[in-house]
Amino acid sequence: MQRIAFGIEYDGTNYCGWQRQNHSSSIQAEVELAISKVANHPVNVFCAGRTDTGVHALGQVIHFDTSAIRQEFSWLRGVNTYLPKDIRVTWCRFVSSDFDARRSALNRRYCYVIINRPVSPGVLQNAMTWIYGKLCVQTMKEGARHLLGSHDFTSFRGAHCQAKSSIRTIQAIEVSQRAEFILLDVTANAFLHHMVRNIAGALIAVGQQKYPPIWVKELLEAKNRRLGGVMAPANGLYLLSVGYMPDKNIPSSQDHPWFF
Amino acid sequence: MQRIAFGIEYDGTNYCGWQRQNHSSSIQAEVELAISKVANHPVNVFCAGRTDTGVHALGQVIHFDTSAIRQEFSWLRGVNTYLPKDIRVTWCRFVSSDFDARRSALNRRYCYVIINRPVSPGVLQNAMTWIYGKLCVQTMKEGARHLLGSHDFTSFRGAHCQAKSSIRTIQAIEVSQRAEFILLDVTANAFLHHMVRNIAGALIAVGQQKYPPIWVKELLEAKNRRLGGVMAPANGLYLLSVGYMPDKNIPSSQDHPWFF
Repeated sequence: MQRIAFGIEYDGTNYCGWQRQNHSSSIQAEVELAISKVANHPVNVFCAGRTDTGVHALGQVIHFDTSAIRQEFSWLRGVNTYLPKDIRVTWCRFVSSDFDARRSALNRRYCYVIINRPVSPGVLQNAMTWIYGKLCVQTMKEGARHLLGSHDFTSFRGAHCQAKSSIRTIQAIEVSQRAEFILLDVTANAFLHHMVRNIAGALIAVGQQKYPPIWVKELLEAKNRRLGGVMAPANGLYLLSVGYMPDKNIPSSQDHPWFF
Repeated sequence: MQRIAFGIEYDGTNYCGWQRQNHSSSIQAEVELAISKVANHPVNVFCAGRTDTGVHALGQVIHFDTSAIRQEFSWLRGVNTYLPKDIRVTWCRFVSSDFDARRSALNRRYCYVIINRPVSPGVLQNAMTWIYGKLCVQTMKEGARHLLGSHDFTSFRGAHCQAKSSIRTIQAIEVSQRAEFILLDVTANAFLHHMVRNIAGALIAVGQQKYPPIWVKELLEAKNRRLGGVMAPANGLYLLSVGYMPDKNIPSSQDHPWFF
């Protein structure tokens, strides 16, 4: 058996999210179907970050095991032939049998894209979240600083989160502005369910001056999701990259020019 | 009668282009319908740059005349209510009766977005043109330089072009690279039919090293479209902005962070 890792890019608009569901089409189901066709046997895949309905990925990482013998570029080309156009394998690597896309991951990096102007976007509506009223980026930056480091993120956790611990470590978090766009760029060892969207929602509330920046710290300390802000919509969210130890043979992701 | 100018942004994917057609839905028809509903009388609009099927705009400019009395923000909000989501009015200005979106325009600025990598894009496929083989950006830059200034652009003119003169002045042209993306940014007093896409096609051929950069100059001098390269696809093309004299009261366009 050979263990293989793929980089996966997708537009989440037309899917119920990463995870296989009975009632609707998922990215996992499409990827497993395409790989199974190339492998000539049923394949289960495991991903680094299970994205929600409508969330996009530029750097999802998955692994699977196969008895099929093919070269890396044949896997890449073959699987892309069977995938819908809004899901692409961007790279393929043979990895050792102890590599696990989820468990070996050191961190995940997400970007949340806001277009902040009076008029909704006519172009690329599914690629960003539109906020009508003027956001104060400076207070969003100040609010974000309180989240850096290891904390109990209970107040930013989705109701259906199944994680045992609610402690996570945010390794980097930055809010930046370019013309009408505001970007939230956040890296953590791992994220709780809906955590990035709840962080985005809280920072948007701070940017709208509904709360002062220190409210983000108070929210963290309260450990109570009911005190949190509105969860931000899915369509502005991108899984940018997943980090691994260099010996894992996983390509480091290129910066995406739209986000930097 | 009041003359009014609008800034218009649209995703060209689902339209046959700007111009009204009998057989399929155009941006012009949608815009005229929406304005007519707000104005309560039939309205004809005139645009600065008639874009083709699949071409996008961030900064199209139009004008129209109306007997209806409303404030600028009421026009903006009202017309956007009746427009499909992939067409937006971004600003509204009352202008003097001698303003003409097309004739008053000093120049038009277009951007052509190429994603240059082995795998087609999974995200935002309609927002860019995918070129598989590695392009040499340096030779594209050299090729582009030959187009700067006033020239007879017969070799870059579409077969159905109805312009009387084929002389146009390219005021600025630049090729730049950011990670996997290559951007062609070109400003001219005006463009012939298919001119930007034919320029993009020629520069792509140069980037693929099918021709040396000097071929672009030879092509110009030959004044023969049959010697030109393949026309580049529509989906990578954006009308970014239209320039007017400051006294025309037209907002200057903001730089779009995705392109700069």
